[in-house]
Amino acid sequence: MQTLVYVFIIINLALALFEDPAVVPLPIWATSTIEIICLSAFTVRMVHYAKVIPRDKFWKDPKNICIIVIVTLSFIDLTIYGALKATGYFAIRWSRVLRPLLLVNVTEGRQLRRAFRSIRNALPQISYVFLLFMFSVLVFSLMALKLFGKRGLLTIDGSPYFTDYLDIVFDLYVLVTTANSPDVMMPAYNYSVFFTIFFILYIVINTYTFMSFFLAVVYNNYKKYLKEEVRQLVKARRFKMCRAFSLLRETCGEGGEPVVTQAKWNHLVKLVKPNISIAHQELLWSVLDDQNKGHIGKFAFVQLADLLSIQVITVKSQPHPIQICFPSMYNSSVSRFIRNVVHHRMFVYVYDLIILVNAVFIGLDEENPVVSNAEWDFVLYAGGYTSRQILDIVFILRVLRLIRLVDSIKRFRAIINTLIKIGPTILTFSQLIVVVYYIFAMVGMELFKGKVQFFEPNSTSPDQEYCGNPLLKGTTFAKLNYCKNNFNNVVSSFIVLLELTVVNQCGFTAVTHVSARIFFVLFHIVVVIIIINIFVAFILEAFLVEYTVDKSDLQTSLEKKIEELELNVQQYVPFGPPIKLFSIASFLIKGLLLFYFPGSRTVDGLLQRMFETDLRTEDFNEEEEPENISFSNPAFDSV
Amino acid sequence: MQTLVYVFIIINLALALFEDPAVVPLPIWATSTIEIICLSAFTVRMVHYAKVIPRDKFWKDPKNICIIVIVTLSFIDLTIYGALKATGYFAIRWSRVLRPLLLVNVTEGRQLRRAFRSIRNALPQISYVFLLFMFSVLVFSLMALKLFGKRGLLTIDGSPYFTDYLDIVFDLYVLVTTANSPDVMMPAYNYSVFFTIFFILYIVINTYTFMSFFLAVVYNNYKKYLKEEVRQLVKARRFKMCRAFSLLRETCGEGGEPVVTQAKWNHLVKLVKPNISIAHQELLWSVLDDQNKGHIGKFAFVQLADLLSIQVITVKSQPHPIQICFPSMYNSSVSRFIRNVVHHRMFVYVYDLIILVNAVFIGLDEENPVVSNAEWDFVLYAGGYTSRQILDIVFILRVLRLIRLVDSIKRFRAIINTLIKIGPTILTFSQLIVVVYYIFAMVGMELFKGKVQFFEPNSTSPDQEYCGNPLLKGTTFAKLNYCKNNFNNVVSSFIVLLELTVVNQCGFTAVTHVSARIFFVLFHIVVVIIIINIFVAFILEAFLVEYTVDKSDLQTSLEKKIEELELNVQQYVPFGPPIKLFSIASFLIKGLLLFYFPGSRTVDGLLQRMFETDLRTEDFNEEEEPENISFSNPAFDSV
Repeated sequence: MQTLVYVFIIINLALALFEDPAVVPLPIWATSTIEIICLSAFTVRMVHYAKVIPRDKFWKDPKNICIIVIVTLSFIDLTIYGALKATGYFAIRWSRVLRPLLLVNVTEGRQLRRAFRSIRNALPQISYVFLLFMFSVLVFSLMALKLFGKRGLLTIDGSPYFTDYLDIVFDLYVLVTTANSPDVMMPAYNYSVFFTIFFILYIVINTYTFMSFFLAVVYNNYKKYLKEEVRQLVKARRFKMCRAFSLLRETCGEGGEPVVTQAKWNHLVKLVKPNISIAHQELLWSVLDDQNKGHIGKFAFVQLADLLSIQVITVKSQPHPIQICFPSMYNSSVSRFIRNVVHHRMFVYVYDLIILVNAVFIGLDEENPVVSNAEWDFVLYAGGYTSRQILDIVFILRVLRLIRLVDSIKRFRAIINTLIKIGPTILTFSQLIVVVYYIFAMVGMELFKGKVQFFEPNSTSPDQEYCGNPLLKGTTFAKLNYCKNNFNNVVSSFIVLLELTVVNQCGFTAVTHVSARIFFVLFHIVVVIIIINIFVAFILEAFLVEYTVDKSDLQTSLEKKIEELELNVQQYVPFGPPIKLFSIASFLIKGLLLFYFPGSRTVDGLLQRMFETDLRTEDFNEEEEPENISFSNPAFDSV
Repeated sequence: MQTLVYVFIIINLALALFEDPAVVPLPIWATSTIEIICLSAFTVRMVHYAKVIPRDKFWKDPKNICIIVIVTLSFIDLTIYGALKATGYFAIRWSRVLRPLLLVNVTEGRQLRRAFRSIRNALPQISYVFLLFMFSVLVFSLMALKLFGKRGLLTIDGSPYFTDYLDIVFDLYVLVTTANSPDVMMPAYNYSVFFTIFFILYIVINTYTFMSFFLAVVYNNYKKYLKEEVRQLVKARRFKMCRAFSLLRETCGEGGEPVVTQAKWNHLVKLVKPNISIAHQELLWSVLDDQNKGHIGKFAFVQLADLLSIQVITVKSQPHPIQICFPSMYNSSVSRFIRNVVHHRMFVYVYDLIILVNAVFIGLDEENPVVSNAEWDFVLYAGGYTSRQILDIVFILRVLRLIRLVDSIKRFRAIINTLIKIGPTILTFSQLIVVVYYIFAMVGMELFKGKVQFFEPNSTSPDQEYCGNPLLKGTTFAKLNYCKNNFNNVVSSFIVLLELTVVNQCGFTAVTHVSARIFFVLFHIVVVIIIINIFVAFILEAFLVEYTVDKSDLQTSLEKKIEELELNVQQYVPFGPPIKLFSIASFLIKGLLLFYFPGSRTVDGLLQRMFETDLRTEDFNEEEEPENISFSNPAFDSV
């Protein structure tokens, strides 16, 4: 069901590919029908929720209100648009801007909502810096007007240089993005070398200092908010565990101290994790009940959740299949020799060397028959070279093998670990980016569609030279063959927005009115100043946590217990790349148990441990319910 | 003397303006004579040091060795160059690269050496990230070669696209600086929209993630190093204070607790700060000796340095001069009314409004006679408009008045405070930048001088169109009129390097061999990846400290004492912009004393308080001498 909701959302978003201006044009009735189906699906879901959830809770949830409003507005827009188009009037599908908000407001979009909340919380502080930054830009523009306005300088296009105040403000704003450096400086520099002082001052103050301020504000808020989220999470979990304890407790005979017996605890663990092995379960119990009393107190009981979150892998001490089928062959001297060779450190090095040599051959020109033949030795695919596309994929896969080489070098592990941890979060960020890009693409398409045209290279149209727009005649935009950077369909809109994100190639402001500049500045504020800075802040934090939090800080009482019981016998594990990552505990002779320690923890997990000291004071307060545990819509995975 | 040393260093550095390739050409004998004078001055200084400082200490100091080597090499180079030039041979002044190192190695360049040490300490960690980053670039280049190499695509210049491996590596490296975005993508994008996925992946991984890693590593090391420096500093100061205490102490009659009497303490304070007022001195004593015993123990004594570092301003409660000369006029009802108006809050607002209106008039076109007349009302200069230059300066000064407006808004204070605190450190950074720029400029001039020529706009030379280099015919570099971006003299070299720092405008790689690329990549690594990141890290830290360290964390025992004694009577001070910054204590009826609290503290001071908890444990250890207090050259200011 969860997948189905996302399928409908994606279909709804993908409609932009087929609606005018379309990549693949479809008639209006077809796209409208698909949209109605999607909207109906969302309506059905809302009705279902309204039946399941208490009425007052349902209407208090802003998510539900949002979805109802979006669906209603979409239906209204669709009706108006259909009616206007049928009677031949001009119409705009304005409700398309709302579509990505569905992605944010479905119950499953928790991570995405958290990202938006984090942005909303940072907004007031960002706005103070932004006001001061804009003040600085305005003052510098005023100075520029006074310094350069009267000198009759000309830009490279032959237009007057720095004579209009608003133009100067825009040019200097763009200089902050470094997109028009050094073009904006050249006329002044050509006139006198001393004018560069103005630009140096501007760059130091606005491009470097203020952009760093933005990063600092975003970083600061991101961290603060993350800490608060982790605090709430841990608090809620502890509260629930305390409640569970008060339900399960029995009063011990002698002292009156409430405890939970092993039998009850075992029953609970079986209910929570049905697939847990008995060995694993006994291991966990022995960690909690280290004095072998047969029962545990409240403090040990509450740690159950943390204990279960440590990944434990059971390695069955099974013999190799060849050993079972052909014992004599497996134990022969040849076999033993091969096994020794494979387990030897040199084997790893030789293997890495082969990968490296392979990479060199890939780099060399394959037109050369000798190289081409040599390459065959490395390609293990039987199908052979059938088409260009398959070949490309195979080559890329082969090149990626090189990553294995890097991973075997210890020094790089922290960096690679950070890269791996960033992975899941990049998904959230890409959703965030898609939501923002989609909205800007919809607006951009309405404003700028058809202004710039792309012609195939073999086209003979005379318009080709200036992208089909006489205004672009002789501009750098046309000369550099940027014609495909236009807002003529969703895909090219997304790519223009990507280019605007990386370096603000705002040539398209030449072809249209002042709205393009506002569009550009707004996009820069939202995407570069806010979202990209959040991304950078996240990477900074993840990297610093990975680098600075060493193991001794992390070893909570739980891990210490495991070590005290000598279950974490890392030192006895023989050298070998696949085993290095784990520490093995041979426990109760029932098999091998691996305690899977840091290195695979998520950033959130690490942060929880970092902030845990702050949480100690408010420890086991079962009466007081955490503030913001509100009734949320049931997620499908929790049913 | 200190100034004299810097004058000689600056003259020595400035020689590059007059040496070939020169801004103002001077004959070789003139520049050589000046250089010999400078070098002799440095030699004399070294000889002086060698006489003053014990022999083994002198030869163990790397600073002295460096200066001796630099001076010797410069003399040798000067001799060889003179001899070769006299006999008409080709010669290179290679020792010019060493000149900026004098700036680093003079005794007074403490801050600069600290910056270099901080870079050196961060280098190993940066190099690991850099290796991985280069690995990623190389793998992506390999993929690009396989994906695009065989498709026969052409760049905008008509040259084959992505066919040579090393060219691809360079192009993708430049993409990290965003300088050639989206140009480098356009041919692939025009061919198929799916190829943009390759570039999106590349930008996410290398431009965003790896560049953030660099920032994270630099930030991490910067902070660690700063903390260590502060720790050493505080330790050294405490050690010295303990030594002073053991010299000045007297054993108290009854208990045997060693103490320092008020008389001795007063004598000491008068010696350390001869200009201190008696009121200030008594205030400090009363803070330390809060039980009025007449003597203080070791703990209170050690705090003297911290106490003296808190800025205290004595405001004499002097009557207004008019009140003395014309008491009747001062006390008249008109005068009282004016004083009330000026002290009223609205007056400030009205004044701010006038500044704002003034700014609007400056922004409006002054060609308009009405506006021009109105402007006169704001310009209070009597000399009138004599020349264009004076006018520019006056206008800029007038615009800067607007900053007053911003400073009166409370929310912006933290940001402005950070900006002010960054001020002194920017001096260190600019020295660092000058050292690095100078070295690169010297190398760049030898490699690229005369490759690109600038022609005055009214020149009729046919070479003007392609900057005097046929290789640039038809390139974007010439079309955008970048001809003045060349290495033909020191000033233009510095400006090219500045442009390379902001956005890597590397058009000059077209006119010369592969060395230009190596030069460009090296410069990018040194300046953008390392120095600019240190600058950003510094701003991040300064801003976060200003934002997150609130007063309650900072109030050390010292400040608490002052508050306990009710000397910090901020709440009784009437509202008023110039007084808001301070907190006033009327003390002993001898005048007004202002305790100048946070907001004016340096970043180092704040950091000291942040790290002070770490220092508590090793508190008053007078036996153990701090490790790295070595014998340093006497600075002129300490004589």
